[in-house]
Amino acid sequence: MALVIQKYGGTSVGDIESIKNVAQRAVRTKEAGNDVIVVVSAMAGETDKLINLAHELTPLPDGRELDVLVSTGEQISVALVSMAIKSMGHEVKSYLGFQIPIQTDSAYGKARITHVSSDKILKDVEAGKIVVVAGFQGVDDEGDITTLGRGGSDTTAVAMAVALNADVCEIFTDVDGVYTTDPNICEKARKLGKISYDEMLEMASLGAKVLHIRAVEFAKKYQVPVHVRASSNDNIGTLVCQEDEEMENVVVSGVTCDKHEAKITITKVPDKPGIAHRLFGAIAAANIMVDMIIQNMSREGLADITFTVIKSDLHKATNIVREIIREIGAKDIDTDENIAKVSIVGTGMRSHSGVASTMFGALAKEGINIMMISTSEIKISCIIESKYTELAVRALHDAFQLDKKGLTKDDATPTP
Amino acid sequence: MALVIQKYGGTSVGDIESIKNVAQRAVRTKEAGNDVIVVVSAMAGETDKLINLAHELTPLPDGRELDVLVSTGEQISVALVSMAIKSMGHEVKSYLGFQIPIQTDSAYGKARITHVSSDKILKDVEAGKIVVVAGFQGVDDEGDITTLGRGGSDTTAVAMAVALNADVCEIFTDVDGVYTTDPNICEKARKLGKISYDEMLEMASLGAKVLHIRAVEFAKKYQVPVHVRASSNDNIGTLVCQEDEEMENVVVSGVTCDKHEAKITITKVPDKPGIAHRLFGAIAAANIMVDMIIQNMSREGLADITFTVIKSDLHKATNIVREIIREIGAKDIDTDENIAKVSIVGTGMRSHSGVASTMFGALAKEGINIMMISTSEIKISCIIESKYTELAVRALHDAFQLDKKGLTKDDATPTP
Repeated sequence: MALVIQKYGGTSVGDIESIKNVAQRAVRTKEAGNDVIVVVSAMAGETDKLINLAHELTPLPDGRELDVLVSTGEQISVALVSMAIKSMGHEVKSYLGFQIPIQTDSAYGKARITHVSSDKILKDVEAGKIVVVAGFQGVDDEGDITTLGRGGSDTTAVAMAVALNADVCEIFTDVDGVYTTDPNICEKARKLGKISYDEMLEMASLGAKVLHIRAVEFAKKYQVPVHVRASSNDNIGTLVCQEDEEMENVVVSGVTCDKHEAKITITKVPDKPGIAHRLFGAIAAANIMVDMIIQNMSREGLADITFTVIKSDLHKATNIVREIIREIGAKDIDTDENIAKVSIVGTGMRSHSGVASTMFGALAKEGINIMMISTSEIKISCIIESKYTELAVRALHDAFQLDKKGLTKDDATPTP
Repeated sequence: MALVIQKYGGTSVGDIESIKNVAQRAVRTKEAGNDVIVVVSAMAGETDKLINLAHELTPLPDGRELDVLVSTGEQISVALVSMAIKSMGHEVKSYLGFQIPIQTDSAYGKARITHVSSDKILKDVEAGKIVVVAGFQGVDDEGDITTLGRGGSDTTAVAMAVALNADVCEIFTDVDGVYTTDPNICEKARKLGKISYDEMLEMASLGAKVLHIRAVEFAKKYQVPVHVRASSNDNIGTLVCQEDEEMENVVVSGVTCDKHEAKITITKVPDKPGIAHRLFGAIAAANIMVDMIIQNMSREGLADITFTVIKSDLHKATNIVREIIREIGAKDIDTDENIAKVSIVGTGMRSHSGVASTMFGALAKEGINIMMISTSEIKISCIIESKYTELAVRALHDAFQLDKKGLTKDDATPTP
C-alpha cells in the first residue's frame, strides 16, 4: 500500500466527461489498495476567462483581488471532482489552500509556498477518504488568498508529496511523458523512460511545457520522484528523478526549441567599463528578464552588444535602450523578432567535450547560421533564424541519435 | 457621517458595465463622507450555471461540495467589484465568508448564521477602506464553506448591518422598491414609501420576491432599517422598518399573488380522531410543506379534506396520500394545479373587522369563486382558479384604493 499524489491539469478536468475519468482513476487507484490524494487545476480555459474579465474592468487589476478571482477556477474543479468520486460510492473531502493550509508568502500571483500542514489531510486519509486538493492556491499570514503562478498546480502536487511523505507524485497531462523533443516537430521523437531533475529543469526552462519549473526545483530539493503520464491511458510515462549512472552515460537527452524570444542589438557601443552595468541595470530595474547576451570584439574602441528578451517585453526594453544609447554614445539599435532558440540538454555533457562541435556541425550541414551561443553545464543553446527552427530540431535529433537510446559517451564523436 | 451597508443582487453585478456602476455608487457614497461596506451576490445566472454543472455529474451532488462549488459565484463578484473600486483610486478590501468570518451551522445549502465577527472589517473601515463582502456564504466550525440558501446575500447584508451597527442597510435590486402589488399585473400599482417588517414578511412569503424572508426576520429581530431601492437610479425606494402609527392606520398595504401551489382534495374521509395527524404526519415526514388546509363539514360521518402544497411537491405528496387513503378508508383523491393564491396584507387589519368582507365582495363582484380561505393577524389569502389571478389582483387593488394612499381605518367599510 502506497500513498499516491495524482495531479490532473486543466485539459484533464476540462469537461464533465473528463472529470468523471479523473474520478474513476482516483477510485481505481484507491481500490487497488493505495491512499490517494488528488490535486487539480482549473478547467481548461477557466483561468484565462477570469483574467480576461478582470482586464475588461481595468488594465491593471489589483494583485490581491486577482488572486481571489482566479483561485475560483481550482475551487470549482475540486468540488466537481469530489462530487464525482462521492457519486461512485467513495468517501471524499475537498480542500482549498486556506483549509489545509498551504501557507505562502504574500507575493500575489507568484507566491511561494512556505509551509504545508499535513495533519488534517492525514486524518482524512487514515479514515479511508480520498482527498481532493485545489492546486495553484495558498493563503498568506494575513489569511489572504494567494496563487502560485502559471503551472502552480504542479508545485502544489510536489509540495503535498513532500509534506505527506508520499511514495510517488503522478502528474497527469495531455501527453504521455517527456519526449526527446516535440513530437509535433520531429516524428522520430521518443518518450524518455527516465530523466534527471537537472535535465528536466533545463527542458522546462527551455520551453518544454510538460512540467512547471518550480515544481521540478521543489521535487529535486526534496528528492520526490515525479511520474509524468497521460490522463487518457494507463501507459507508463516518464520518471523524473535523481540522475543515475545510466543517465550519465547518455550525452544528450533532448532537443528543445523556443520562439518566444526577440533579439536587440546595439551597435558601436564605446568599449569602456561600466557600460554593460548601466544598460542591463536599467533593464533589470524594469523587471525585464534578459536571457542571452553577447558582445563582439571591439573594433576601434566600439563594440556591438546583442541580447535576447521575451517578445512581450521587446517594446518596453527597446524604449529603455533608446534612452540609454544617447547617454552612452552608442550608434544605433536594431531589433529582430524572427529568431528561435534551439537547445540540446543532457547530463552526459558534463564529462564529454565533443558535444558542442557535433551540434554546430549538424546545423552547418543544413546551412543554418548561428547568431548567438550560450552554454551551461548540461545544455547548449543556439539562436538561429526562426524559419529554420523545425529543420534544426530534426537535424539535432538525428545527429545525437535520439530516436535510438541516444548517443552514449562511447560513441559520441565530434563531426568534422 | 454614517456607516452604510449596500447590497447588490445578481442583475446589479451581471456584467462588466453593471459592476462599474456598483463601484461608482460605492465610491460616490464614500466620497459623500460615509463609511461603506458593499455586499454582493453572484453575477446573474452564475449560480444556476454552477448547479447545472453539478447535476450533469450526479443527480444528488454532495452537500458540502455543492457549497464549495456555488460559493465561487460570490467570490468572483467581490474580486471584480473590488478591482473596479481600486481602479477608481479608492482603497478597498474584499472579504470572503471564511475571512470575516461569518460563522454558521453546518446545514449545507441552507446554513444559518450564528456569529459575525466585526473586528477585522472595522479596522479596515476605520483605515478609510471600502470593504466588499461576499454574500450568501459562511464557514462552519470545521472551517468548511457553507451557503445560506437562495437570496442569502440579503441575509448577509442585514447580518453585517447588525454586527457593525450600521446606520442603514440598502438593498439594491432591479426594481425601485416594494409595490402595493406586481406592476406587471396592475398598472395602478404604487411604490410604498414605508412598510413594516411584519407586512414585508407576509409579502415575502406570499411571493413578492424583492427581499429574502430570512433577511427580513433578521432585520426585524435586530431592528435594522432596510432600504430597498433600484441600482439603476438614485430614487428613494421603500424603507422596511418598525411599524408606526401612520402604517397602522392603513388597512391594507399590498396585494400579492402566487401560482406555485397545487391543491389536493381527499373525499369521504371517515370523520374520526387521529386521521389528520396520520395524513399530515406522513406528508411532513417526507419534508413537504403544506400551506393551507380546510376540512369541510362532516356529512354522514364522512368529510372532505383539502390542502395545498408547492407544485413541485405535488407528485410526491399524491403518492403518499394514495397509500394513506386505503389505510384510513377514504374514498378518492383529486388534484388541481390550476389554482392561485391571492392575498391582502396590512398591519391595519389587526384593528379592523370589515377587511375580509371587502375582499370577498370584490372577488364576488368579478364572479370569482373562492375555493379556500386562510387568515393570519395581518393577511387574508384566498385560493381561486388561476385564470382569474390578474383580474383578482386588480379588483382587490381597486377595492382597497391602493393606487391612492390606501384605505384607512376611518374610510374602510365593508362592501355589502
